[in-house]
Amino acid sequence: MSPVSDLLWPGDHRAGRIFDDSAVLEAMVRVEAAWLSALVLHGVADPAARDDLTGLIGPDDVTAVARDAEAGGNPVIPMLKLLRARLGERNPVAAQWLHKGMTSQDVLDTGLMLCLRDALTRIRADLRDQIAALVRLAGEHRATPMAGRTLTQHAVPITFGLKAATWLTGVLDARDRLASAADLPLQIGGAAGSLAAPVALAGSPAVVADLVEATGDLLGLRVRDPWHTARAPFTAAADTMVTCTDAWGRIANDILVAARPEIHELAEGAVAGRGGSSAMPNKQNPVLSILVRRAALVAPLLAATVHAGAAAAVDERPDGGWHVEWSALRTLARHTVTAGAQTAELLGGLRVETAWMTANLTAARPGIDAEQRSIAPDAAPDEPYRGATDQIIDAVIARAKE
Amino acid sequence: MSPVSDLLWPGDHRAGRIFDDSAVLEAMVRVEAAWLSALVLHGVADPAARDDLTGLIGPDDVTAVARDAEAGGNPVIPMLKLLRARLGERNPVAAQWLHKGMTSQDVLDTGLMLCLRDALTRIRADLRDQIAALVRLAGEHRATPMAGRTLTQHAVPITFGLKAATWLTGVLDARDRLASAADLPLQIGGAAGSLAAPVALAGSPAVVADLVEATGDLLGLRVRDPWHTARAPFTAAADTMVTCTDAWGRIANDILVAARPEIHELAEGAVAGRGGSSAMPNKQNPVLSILVRRAALVAPLLAATVHAGAAAAVDERPDGGWHVEWSALRTLARHTVTAGAQTAELLGGLRVETAWMTANLTAARPGIDAEQRSIAPDAAPDEPYRGATDQIIDAVIARAKE
Amino acid sequence: MSPVSDLLWPGDHRAGRIFDDSAVLEAMVRVEAAWLSALVLHGVADPAARDDLTGLIGPDDVTAVARDAEAGGNPVIPMLKLLRARLGERNPVAAQWLHKGMTSQDVLDTGLMLCLRDALTRIRADLRDQIAALVRLAGEHRATPMAGRTLTQHAVPITFGLKAATWLTGVLDARDRLASAADLPLQIGGAAGSLAAPVALAGSPAVVADLVEATGDLLGLRVRDPWHTARAPFTAAADTMVTCTDAWGRIANDILVAARPEIHELAEGAVAGRGGSSAMPNKQNPVLSILVRRAALVAPLLAATVHAGAAAAVDERPDGGWHVEWSALRTLARHTVTAGAQTAELLGGLRVETAWMTANLTAARPGIDAEQRSIAPDAAPDEPYRGATDQIIDAVIARAKE
Amino acid sequence: MSPVSDLLWPGDHRAGRIFDDSAVLEAMVRVEAAWLSALVLHGVADPAARDDLTGLIGPDDVTAVARDAEAGGNPVIPMLKLLRARLGERNPVAAQWLHKGMTSQDVLDTGLMLCLRDALTRIRADLRDQIAALVRLAGEHRATPMAGRTLTQHAVPITFGLKAATWLTGVLDARDRLASAADLPLQIGGAAGSLAAPVALAGSPAVVADLVEATGDLLGLRVRDPWHTARAPFTAAADTMVTCTDAWGRIANDILVAARPEIHELAEGAVAGRGGSSAMPNKQNPVLSILVRRAALVAPLLAATVHAGAAAAVDERPDGGWHVEWSALRTLARHTVTAGAQTAELLGGLRVETAWMTANLTAARPGIDAEQRSIAPDAAPDEPYRGATDQIIDAVIARAKE
Repeated sequence: MSPVSDLLWPGDHRAGRIFDDSAVLEAMVRVEAAWLSALVLHGVADPAARDDLTGLIGPDDVTAVARDAEAGGNPVIPMLKLLRARLGERNPVAAQWLHKGMTSQDVLDTGLMLCLRDALTRIRADLRDQIAALVRLAGEHRATPMAGRTLTQHAVPITFGLKAATWLTGVLDARDRLASAADLPLQIGGAAGSLAAPVALAGSPAVVADLVEATGDLLGLRVRDPWHTARAPFTAAADTMVTCTDAWGRIANDILVAARPEIHELAEGAVAGRGGSSAMPNKQNPVLSILVRRAALVAPLLAATVHAGAAAAVDERPDGGWHVEWSALRTLARHTVTAGAQTAELLGGLRVETAWMTANLTAARPGIDAEQRSIAPDAAPDEPYRGATDQIIDAVIARAKE
Repeated sequence: MSPVSDLLWPGDHRAGRIFDDSAVLEAMVRVEAAWLSALVLHGVADPAARDDLTGLIGPDDVTAVARDAEAGGNPVIPMLKLLRARLGERNPVAAQWLHKGMTSQDVLDTGLMLCLRDALTRIRADLRDQIAALVRLAGEHRATPMAGRTLTQHAVPITFGLKAATWLTGVLDARDRLASAADLPLQIGGAAGSLAAPVALAGSPAVVADLVEATGDLLGLRVRDPWHTARAPFTAAADTMVTCTDAWGRIANDILVAARPEIHELAEGAVAGRGGSSAMPNKQNPVLSILVRRAALVAPLLAATVHAGAAAAVDERPDGGWHVEWSALRTLARHTVTAGAQTAELLGGLRVETAWMTANLTAARPGIDAEQRSIAPDAAPDEPYRGATDQIIDAVIARAKE
Repeated sequence: MSPVSDLLWPGDHRAGRIFDDSAVLEAMVRVEAAWLSALVLHGVADPAARDDLTGLIGPDDVTAVARDAEAGGNPVIPMLKLLRARLGERNPVAAQWLHKGMTSQDVLDTGLMLCLRDALTRIRADLRDQIAALVRLAGEHRATPMAGRTLTQHAVPITFGLKAATWLTGVLDARDRLASAADLPLQIGGAAGSLAAPVALAGSPAVVADLVEATGDLLGLRVRDPWHTARAPFTAAADTMVTCTDAWGRIANDILVAARPEIHELAEGAVAGRGGSSAMPNKQNPVLSILVRRAALVAPLLAATVHAGAAAAVDERPDGGWHVEWSALRTLARHTVTAGAQTAELLGGLRVETAWMTANLTAARPGIDAEQRSIAPDAAPDEPYRGATDQIIDAVIARAKE
Repeated sequence: MSPVSDLLWPGDHRAGRIFDDSAVLEAMVRVEAAWLSALVLHGVADPAARDDLTGLIGPDDVTAVARDAEAGGNPVIPMLKLLRARLGERNPVAAQWLHKGMTSQDVLDTGLMLCLRDALTRIRADLRDQIAALVRLAGEHRATPMAGRTLTQHAVPITFGLKAATWLTGVLDARDRLASAADLPLQIGGAAGSLAAPVALAGSPAVVADLVEATGDLLGLRVRDPWHTARAPFTAAADTMVTCTDAWGRIANDILVAARPEIHELAEGAVAGRGGSSAMPNKQNPVLSILVRRAALVAPLLAATVHAGAAAAVDERPDGGWHVEWSALRTLARHTVTAGAQTAELLGGLRVETAWMTANLTAARPGIDAEQRSIAPDAAPDEPYRGATDQIIDAVIARAKE
């Protein structure tokens, strides 16, 4: 199957197969396989039911499963049908035990968690690269003077290192949020969240607890009591991703201002063939910043969609509130992964035009020195006005290394 | 290429190829072809440049074009590169004139309009079917008594025909909104919306006006002066689609309540294999209603994304505001098409359980008659309390036939 | 009562009393008065019930009515209780007929429509002023050269008149949308939208039709069959307001870029005391543009809230979907009115720094001329590159005068 | 000044003065007072500058400050002007030192944090009450049988205690999220976040660190380096509040279904005068649930607004992104406080109609037993099917007591 890519979301290929249809399908099969293993492992299922389900379903099945998903409202039912039929040929006992005790939502929620974990892992790696680049920028430019701007106008002089430290603060907030949201749980509850079917199969709640724990171990997910209609595990992940795109969007906004030819203080790293125009050979567009900013514009709405789904939960499985989460979560994850990779590359290659910073600052004088003159009228004309810049930079760099 | 389908948006296959990557790519090629034809037609390009561009690019090229779209931030640039290379082999003169005078945004905006038109055409057809079904339901059940409910509680008796008339009102509002938004414009403005390049090529604004008109004729789009940063044509389309999903969500909500076993007044039409459960053979879930309700939950956020992009417009082409619109518009269009088809089928097959309506109404007595007793204390015990039900139904049926 | 103003939405006082609590309360009383008049006029109520309800309820009652609104979930019930008690003292017959046949939703929806009309009237007036200012700017500066910018970078030369024409295009789109949404309907349906109580009181649907028409005449609202759960009249108004803020936000974004000291092409008109800083005496901040941009950021979310409410409609009166609309609609209306007034003032006082435009354009050469050189390599060095700028400006000015 | 209440948000009076205009104004004065105290305490300001600022500004000043806020774009500037003038009369030295070294954003951000803390404190208290009520319901009804429902249809039998345990899970997730977000920081950074003015005043970064710490101590806020454009402290608070309303909305949805007369399994506690209708004396509407559901519908959009503002940050103080946060944060806080109080009352008074639960479950048989029959065909006819219900309830109760 060819690599995934979204024609209308340039850069999407950076997310590779994370959360694409085939990855979701594969993740759901992994959930079924883990549960089946647990059933065998704890003696609930016949030992002959052992089967790792590999090779039964693949990317080529996506279209059919997707199409047949409408009849039951979710893709688990047609996936199971296919899986059972094919497994039946090679291991009829396994086919009989497959999915026993679980409900569709168990499989889909847990499968989405596996995909989410891949996304968060990628985001974490890109955050690490961003942090390294920002630590470097903040340190190297701690004394590089430039105009500080508030409400679009010149305010007081700052250094570019301070600006980078502020960018870094946002990125570290995102990192810390990610750390607190990263311990993703599985979902196993049975038809109505009481674990009734598993207990009926296994004979006791204690054995079911073992089954659930074994499944969690196999999948690397945290054990948690059923949360079919308590959706904070998904909304927390969504909020975390928006916290990332907020931080990156804020950086992109600064670069987009600074890359304007009249300001010229920052530029994206030159990459052959990037930033060109279909009609204007002179153009060098700050493409990565534009695409990151784009992600920051939409991410709050995608997270709001996940929350809207959570807030619409009702009964023991919701009538639409559940269904609306999946696609929003996936789109948000892919967009965040893409924007994270773009931001890492952007920061790694950022060109800092110190001469332009100096020139703009000089042109901003004497107005930009007015606050200093008013507070310290007797200061020497070349007295710097950096306040606690060094301390702030040192503190954020120290935080980065935590 | 296999039919498109989204594993995490069950029912998505109903939208077929509308607005899928290959359809967008094809639409962009059609825009290039129309412009090239216009250039030849009006003597701006060499007659040898005549080429309809067919067969040059196809679904197999989507992945590469999508991947290469990041470098320039949009898919037009890599599409053109491919097109030019292949066209150069069969018609070098055409390759030289290809895209001349246009800018990427012209091609993408106009291409999206072609896709949007296909979506709106499908939505219009499904609205027509829905209206026919609702006219029938309102008429047949104009005197079918049932409990009216407000704030979840029994209020006064109504008829199911009145309820269907109210559903129909929402659908007709959507139809009328669609009618007013359906005259979609092309986008041709050149690099900065001044038509400078086309005029330089063609020699005069008058000839360019002819070129634009010819292009509009070929594509079936309305001529309009450049709107690169005045995005109401897209936001109006988005608002229209949400007006549809609002109306359908409202219907789905009613069916979901009425399909509860304790209420039992409405049921989705039986379709073999639909509504089943992976674990509970007894279940018959109102799947279409659930999926329609799902679309109604997300559509307002998708339209808000298009507006957020429009509101972020700046300069002569925006730095992210433009880019965020494409995918939101496409997702909204596919979801709306899918939900429209589902609603049409849902209404066409809706089962009205008049006996349950009567039974529930009877059980609601005498409380539900309290208003009537208070207003008309001397009314006969079996005096109906239908107010202007017939007039309201007649009026909305008449409106449906406009 | 002191004028309303919101400490956390600077500029809010521009909306005056539009849609404030006392205006909403007054509007609801007007609805009751109109209906009572209609009942008397058409002989349904005793002639002694004639009472215009003036002087019974005023701004001082807002707090108590608001507080008591929770018990029934809407403010109509406590308002009626107060009204009835006070009216009972001066006209017991009127007190007895008050509200007869209506339901809370009739009064609140219609009252909100009256407030909405005031808001739209104000918006229309400000649009008119904006259009006049933009027609002037587009005309005066049709030949004022400046750098055209796409994706933040220099693209090709344009004129400031062309930019103003593009701004005007967005504003005219908003004006046209407003025109199509301005014919606001009343809401009279009785408890479950069947007009059962009114017909029981009046004796026939025909008389009720007269009552509704009389009420519409008295209030200046369009007659429409009940739309308790078909909320397009509200969502259309919300969409219209966002179309306005989109257009204004787009203008504000351009001014915010152009007002940057390094670019310096546009400035807000100087107003004594505006744009200052609490600490930096040198600052002159583009405050109006900032506040307009702020409104454009939030408006899509407010309209999405109205849609989310509409999409949650169920039964004959929704269980929360209705209730969430009121405040969102009001906030959106006040923010739009405020932003409209700010934009009108902003455009009326805009300072165009033509010397800076020229200087920036000169500095952008020769790069910015690359497209022209490539298309017309033999053009004279001073050959303008304006394309259809004059035609585009003339067309939009003509459209403005429609 | 009369208590605040919003006519179009019934129940708003429950939030009392939290985050109302006068509370915001007072909080900003407290910030100025704390900073002034710190300046005196650490010997930066003249000892004669000691003044606690009490009695200088009060609720009566709100309207004027709000109106004058437009000129500078925020309310700090007019507040300071007023404060300085009045303070000048009683303590000219204090007036001279007032606000020295801070910027408007320091005062407003920190003031909003004080208001936010009041809101979160109230929410925490209401969460506690909700948790107590839910622990009681889960325990008392651990064996109360009822029909479990998925996708609106009968699924398998559950107990009401299990349902309450699921509700509790969501509430505990919200509690835990609140705990992690509750350590709110102050904002002190000076004009561009470098603390330049404070250091110039105080003579060294070390003394400024003392000033900031003293201010934090006085206000009870955590010290944090400047975050003018790194807005995670606000977005985290917003996400937390939505996590609360998600959990409460989910409960309200269940009650709204169960309160339908045909289902009748739950009812809101009877409160004299609540739930009535303006026209139908028979009605007893589940008003609290409706109003809670309403809050859950809008909260995701309000949090998205805060994120959209954060993502629009640019420069050292944003041009609109900052301004859009304030009102969204306030509205979200008041709505969350109101919904929290309503939910606490709702749960405290909830009536559980066990007879109806049993009757509905009986009517659902034998279909609802199908899963059990299929998994355990030999089970006795009255064999319960509760799975790990007791274990799940015990675990969530234990978690509640953490």
